[in-house]
Amino acid sequence: MQFKVSIVGGGNFGTAIAKLLAENVLNLKSYSPEITMWLYEEYINEIPLTQIINTTHINTKYLPDIHLPTNIRATSDLKELNDSDILIFVIPHQFVKNIINQIKGTLKKGVISVSLIKGVIYSNGDIGLISKYISNTLNIPCGVLMGANIAIEVAKGYISEGTLSGVNDKEGIIIRNLFNSNIYRVSIVDDLWGVELCGTLKNVVSLGYGICKGMGCGLNTCCAVLRNGLVEICNFYKLLGKGKDCTLFESCGISDLMVSCLAGRNFKAGEFIGKKISLEEIKEKMGGQQLQGPDTAKEIYEYLKGKGKEKEFPLFTTVYRVCFENELPDAIYCCISPKSISDQ
Amino acid sequence: MQFKVSIVGGGNFGTAIAKLLAENVLNLKSYSPEITMWLYEEYINEIPLTQIINTTHINTKYLPDIHLPTNIRATSDLKELNDSDILIFVIPHQFVKNIINQIKGTLKKGVISVSLIKGVIYSNGDIGLISKYISNTLNIPCGVLMGANIAIEVAKGYISEGTLSGVNDKEGIIIRNLFNSNIYRVSIVDDLWGVELCGTLKNVVSLGYGICKGMGCGLNTCCAVLRNGLVEICNFYKLLGKGKDCTLFESCGISDLMVSCLAGRNFKAGEFIGKKISLEEIKEKMGGQQLQGPDTAKEIYEYLKGKGKEKEFPLFTTVYRVCFENELPDAIYCCISPKSISDQ
Repeated sequence: MQFKVSIVGGGNFGTAIAKLLAENVLNLKSYSPEITMWLYEEYINEIPLTQIINTTHINTKYLPDIHLPTNIRATSDLKELNDSDILIFVIPHQFVKNIINQIKGTLKKGVISVSLIKGVIYSNGDIGLISKYISNTLNIPCGVLMGANIAIEVAKGYISEGTLSGVNDKEGIIIRNLFNSNIYRVSIVDDLWGVELCGTLKNVVSLGYGICKGMGCGLNTCCAVLRNGLVEICNFYKLLGKGKDCTLFESCGISDLMVSCLAGRNFKAGEFIGKKISLEEIKEKMGGQQLQGPDTAKEIYEYLKGKGKEKEFPLFTTVYRVCFENELPDAIYCCISPKSISDQ
Repeated sequence: MQFKVSIVGGGNFGTAIAKLLAENVLNLKSYSPEITMWLYEEYINEIPLTQIINTTHINTKYLPDIHLPTNIRATSDLKELNDSDILIFVIPHQFVKNIINQIKGTLKKGVISVSLIKGVIYSNGDIGLISKYISNTLNIPCGVLMGANIAIEVAKGYISEGTLSGVNDKEGIIIRNLFNSNIYRVSIVDDLWGVELCGTLKNVVSLGYGICKGMGCGLNTCCAVLRNGLVEICNFYKLLGKGKDCTLFESCGISDLMVSCLAGRNFKAGEFIGKKISLEEIKEKMGGQQLQGPDTAKEIYEYLKGKGKEKEFPLFTTVYRVCFENELPDAIYCCISPKSISDQ
């Protein structure tokens, strides 16, 4: 039997991952040689994007410079996922509930899945994982794969690492072998919460890093913000009683935090915020690209406030206040080794 | 009584620190308001550099764009350190033995000191700390202060952090209060070995990061090298039985590693190495600036080889081999999540 692999999501990261897997499966006997990539249909000059991808082998909207292998087949029909053995979820987190509800009850028995989605689900004062939501709603196993993976670099075949978690030994090997190659190197760790939280919280830190950069700070200051952010991620693990410190040394931890701070979308938004440009204007400037940092900062702040712990997370709290409560960007300076100031 | 503070070293970092402390002492009653800065005399158009600094209040050779406070007095006479209560060592590590031997036996009773010097002493198959060497040779306490501190940024008053260690409570407060301010924030940790090793080993990692950048790699790959380097630093702690993992989350750890990889001298040298330029040519290009990474890579490699552990530190070993054994720069790719490849 060969595993049939489908990717749910055809944005820039989904497309980059489709290319990686389509190249990998050609060298692997256990996986069907065709990769299905589902995407929400869009029209470019009235031509469906799926049709453009299937005929030109280029995702002209999201990854226009990359030629895709011909064994990727794009579709906008969720029914085509029905015979998949492995589902890879790579969609913006605000679309998760809608799509998961549409495919509920339609999947093949024994399907396994992995989420590359960054974000958490905050409701009723509690933090939940997207991978758990997928797993519980569809009643299938769902792991998580995160890492320092700028989409265009993965698409270009630059060497990258990823961290896989939330899988048992058997699933772990099936998923790891699908992704693993000389250009994409997968490590498996036993810490689903830690891996998935990293991917979420880094967006708040990278906003903070961007704010500093936008105010004209040097590297010493920006890196101090990143470091204090890393410490707050670590302390957030402790507050939740979930996540292992050692996971922060994995690709999903410090590496992903670093690339997000240096080149991510939230970093860029942070730079504008540091220049006192409003969130609304920034969203316009970014041409409708989804920004997850501010929403995450809000969710995390609400969670912390609910626990009366917001003062113990000065960076997370300040990023929220700068985004939503007219706090001035330079309030962020108080988050850098704050103890050493107050001790004086 | 007021503590008399002297800085041993007047390069760019020594001068930046002199400026920081000279500004701080004016607001502090416990410290004498004049800072002595000793430097090895050099002549600019036949005029002694100390004389230039004392008359123009600019270190025209090492920090030409920065106006220094007038309460810094430069000298090239080591005897002027004799009445100091606090000595701050900021010299390149290859000059340590010579200078320490010259001041041995000349110091005031009760003097305390702190080393900002990056490097270790490797001899007879063992690794020793510079702070311990200073402390043992002069028979005085010597702490260590390291952090993400690009000299020019400290000199410009950009907010920076530092990590202080190796001091008892009383000395710790005296030294911390001297450095601590709104623009320089000092945290004290109990891990002399960890703090000082970070400052040394990061130079090997930043060479590796530079090598990747020089070969044209993207951020995913460069950050993967940084992360694997961080893991090797952590494993080096374990091999030595010294250093605490949590120290890697301090400014001397991940922050200093990051600024060194992004902007340090060894990173720049690594970039040239990645372009297959020889170490000799690089030293010429860098106009005689001291490069500590290659020598450190060699010392660490020899130590590891002596223990038969070089294979467990693929990045440290590869950086050494690329620098000194004609290994090709792309050998570094084997250091990125190497287990995930060999597991295949």
